Amino acid sequence: MKDQPDDSFHVFDTTLRDGAQREGINLTVADKLTIARHLDDFGVGFIEGGWPGANPRDTEFFARARAEIDFTHAQLVAFGATRKAGVRAEDDPQVQALLDSQAPVITLVAKSHDRHVELALRTTLEENLAMVRDTVAHLRAQGRRVFVDCEHFFDGYRANPGYAKQVVSAAHEAGADVVVLCDTNGGMLPAQIDAVVRTVLADTGARLGIHAQDDTGCAVANTLAAVDAGATHVQCTANGYGERVGNANLFPVAAALELKYGRAVLPKGALAEMTRISHAIAEVVNLTPSTHQPYVGVSAFAHKAGLHASAIKVDPDLYQHIDPELVGNTMRMLVSDMAGRASVELKGKELGIDLSGDRELVGRVVERVKERELAGYTYEAADASFELLLREEVEGRPRRYFRVESWRAIVEDRPDGTHANEATVKLWAKGERIVSTAEGNGPVNALDRALRLGLERFYPQLATMELVDYKVRILEGKHGTESTTRVLVSTTDGKGEWSTVGVGENVIAASWQALDDAYAYGLLRAGVEPQG
Amino acid sequence: MKDQPDDSFHVFDTTLRDGAQREGINLTVADKLTIARHLDDFGVGFIEGGWPGANPRDTEFFARARAEIDFTHAQLVAFGATRKAGVRAEDDPQVQALLDSQAPVITLVAKSHDRHVELALRTTLEENLAMVRDTVAHLRAQGRRVFVDCEHFFDGYRANPGYAKQVVSAAHEAGADVVVLCDTNGGMLPAQIDAVVRTVLADTGARLGIHAQDDTGCAVANTLAAVDAGATHVQCTANGYGERVGNANLFPVAAALELKYGRAVLPKGALAEMTRISHAIAEVVNLTPSTHQPYVGVSAFAHKAGLHASAIKVDPDLYQHIDPELVGNTMRMLVSDMAGRASVELKGKELGIDLSGDRELVGRVVERVKERELAGYTYEAADASFELLLREEVEGRPRRYFRVESWRAIVEDRPDGTHANEATVKLWAKGERIVSTAEGNGPVNALDRALRLGLERFYPQLATMELVDYKVRILEGKHGTESTTRVLVSTTDGKGEWSTVGVGENVIAASWQALDDAYAYGLLRAGVEPQG
Repeated sequence: MKDQPDDSFHVFDTTLRDGAQREGINLTVADKLTIARHLDDFGVGFIEGGWPGANPRDTEFFARARAEIDFTHAQLVAFGATRKAGVRAEDDPQVQALLDSQAPVITLVAKSHDRHVELALRTTLEENLAMVRDTVAHLRAQGRRVFVDCEHFFDGYRANPGYAKQVVSAAHEAGADVVVLCDTNGGMLPAQIDAVVRTVLADTGARLGIHAQDDTGCAVANTLAAVDAGATHVQCTANGYGERVGNANLFPVAAALELKYGRAVLPKGALAEMTRISHAIAEVVNLTPSTHQPYVGVSAFAHKAGLHASAIKVDPDLYQHIDPELVGNTMRMLVSDMAGRASVELKGKELGIDLSGDRELVGRVVERVKERELAGYTYEAADASFELLLREEVEGRPRRYFRVESWRAIVEDRPDGTHANEATVKLWAKGERIVSTAEGNGPVNALDRALRLGLERFYPQLATMELVDYKVRILEGKHGTESTTRVLVSTTDGKGEWSTVGVGENVIAASWQALDDAYAYGLLRAGVEPQG
Repeated sequence: MKDQPDDSFHVFDTTLRDGAQREGINLTVADKLTIARHLDDFGVGFIEGGWPGANPRDTEFFARARAEIDFTHAQLVAFGATRKAGVRAEDDPQVQALLDSQAPVITLVAKSHDRHVELALRTTLEENLAMVRDTVAHLRAQGRRVFVDCEHFFDGYRANPGYAKQVVSAAHEAGADVVVLCDTNGGMLPAQIDAVVRTVLADTGARLGIHAQDDTGCAVANTLAAVDAGATHVQCTANGYGERVGNANLFPVAAALELKYGRAVLPKGALAEMTRISHAIAEVVNLTPSTHQPYVGVSAFAHKAGLHASAIKVDPDLYQHIDPELVGNTMRMLVSDMAGRASVELKGKELGIDLSGDRELVGRVVERVKERELAGYTYEAADASFELLLREEVEGRPRRYFRVESWRAIVEDRPDGTHANEATVKLWAKGERIVSTAEGNGPVNALDRALRLGLERFYPQLATMELVDYKVRILEGKHGTESTTRVLVSTTDGKGEWSTVGVGENVIAASWQALDDAYAYGLLRAGVEPQG
């Protein structure tokens, strides 16, 4: 690892362990490795990768991460539990699995709420302390760095403060570098966190960390309150993913520490990558990024009120608490709910098309976009489709590389159990009529192949293009039969990637449009002139 | 108004004014009236309805609200600005419009940051103070109750604390009942809020309110910090809607005050309506309710980790900070690959199936779920498919109502531009073979119709069933051709709704499975015995 952060303050990420407990997340090992790379790019000091031994996928993750990832900033952490009651740490296979993962750091979860020791673990308060001591000592003896998560700490402290502190001390004295106070049920408020952390710090002298859940909507604030009270280790997840409502969100926590506290907890330049990394992780996890997330959300610096806009023309700082560029985000002006002149001009500029001279043209584009968005299109995630629309208005004619006369797709599930997906396309290109048929693993795939098969003779450049992502959304999902379908497609030519959108009454029709735009854009990129 | 809350603490809602500044919200007057009724049901003391005069829709809203709504708890508030510089309050038509709205309470927004006075208002610091004094006095003389929002207060206090406090005093002395300190740019953290509110309270003696924006992810905590410091008026919006990231969310703020602070700020019984009201407002606003909102989100009390489930079997309070019923929500057990025996047992119990006696059965179900989830199924959002799986294991045989021999769907885009979507299904039911063909607006819709057409004679109950939601996800989206498709379908029979899942190599095959389960479940609900 080339550039480990200062050990005096820990940014500890648990997206791959606690974050994965969010309803709707189901990570493959490949997903986890990709996310780990993103987290390392962001510069967190620790990546808790999962529970090896308990989860086979996690056992595989640690093995592959060791072999495939050369971390720049982060250290991998294996998560697990203290030894079972009545069993020696060295004899507990679950503990051994933590060692087998080869992770240099291990986090152990320990019960610190007397009621949990009695009802959930079904053992004595004394044995629980021994479980903590023995497991920590054993792992330290094996050369690992150990952190201990005191589960349900704040509830436990409220019920039996003496015992809760005994657990902290047991962990600390046995050699745990950090004892993390966890608000596992998420019911705490910042003032409570502050008071408890101060007292525990004073009474035990342990190095403390904080792990907050967001059930009261205060996880970020709770995390910062603990830091104010002396904690030097914060546990967070990307985009706040986690069990129930979620965990403390890594991004607003890191941004607060860097921008409001003026503490360099991330490597130089990392904060400016925050928006990109937040969205990239959401992509892997296959969850729509929350548009209203602090700092990184698409709407975080989007200004709607007319008064705000007039002031911003004078100075953006009048309505923004920070410069969005600091976190890799951008300011957006919303003239209405949909595109306005400013958005169109700015977007055009981004694409290298200067629209500033032509008010009437910009107005026309705005109108077309509004109409299209009403019909279900979205240009936010389909830059290539927007660029095609823009160029059509600028050039005054559609950019057509081929004309489709008709297409047909047949999907069949035969009595013998086999499947068939066949598509036939009839089209015109460069004055010639082509009939082309292909099979595929689905109707869209079959149509795609038939289209390319028919056109490759005319446009050999299509051979380099490949669909790499495909998202379907049914709009107005209520009463499926009346819904509109929107498809977003990502295509690559090996050198770059572009996104297009299609809308239709069913997924086939919508996909067709998205593909049509994808190839038109690909040919535009390849410098091929339209020949209708 | 029959039941006005205690005036010593104000829950002030600005969903209809500030909340409407959220990107993506576009409220009609009818929408606003509906939301106002929901807010009144929840028991807020004040509903800021908009800016009459400045927004014609708002002028209409106030007129119609006065005529059509008989508020039980809330008072309507009109929002507007202090008089224009150099104009007398009584001559300012915008101020007059506030009076014309007949709202008993008026909130005036005033600049309290010297830079804004100079750059945005383009007037002098003295004139700004006069604008505050004159407008407040004028409205008081007309018999209105007046609150003053000190815009950009915290930034203004940091830049020029003396001037910021002068604005507060000017408002207070002229007769404003509450002076609201606004963190307009949302950049504050709780500790900063606390310090400033304490000082301003001590130095001015005004009754203070707090208006927090969520740009640092701390709006709820900032609101509570202000209350801790002596503020007795909190401004929030339903579901945290608002400009940029959003405003302080009414629901976690109210829940914290009631459940954590033990203060009765809502009418008796209102808190238990919170989940329903949160979702109802999201419906009106036509935004998908955030699944992960504190207290009211569908995931707020959804438990995934196997360890959590085992503890919850013993006592739900072990992993929940409050009883979800207090806020009108329910606990949900998620069955996923993280599921263990406890999750399956609890889920079975939720569905009315007692699995506690049969360890081997539970083990088999756990295995089947893990296998299926690996193949792409998800039971988290498909309770009905899970119940069918469970019943199959319990009964020892599949619940088949019909057997499909083959199916075929044809999707066509003809030369004349018309579309055709036709499906043929060949199946067996009650010993008879049926061939059925139907058309639809897409291949899945055509298959659905063909299936129902074929079966309605045997199962007339199918006529009551209707697809109401349909979600498609392509799994392992990289390299579209190798992806698996997962479809989630919601079906209703007019009395209840159920969700099923299907997985296949393309969207047609996956949809077919989801529909098959949907009808099997619907017939199970209707008490029809399987007759394969």
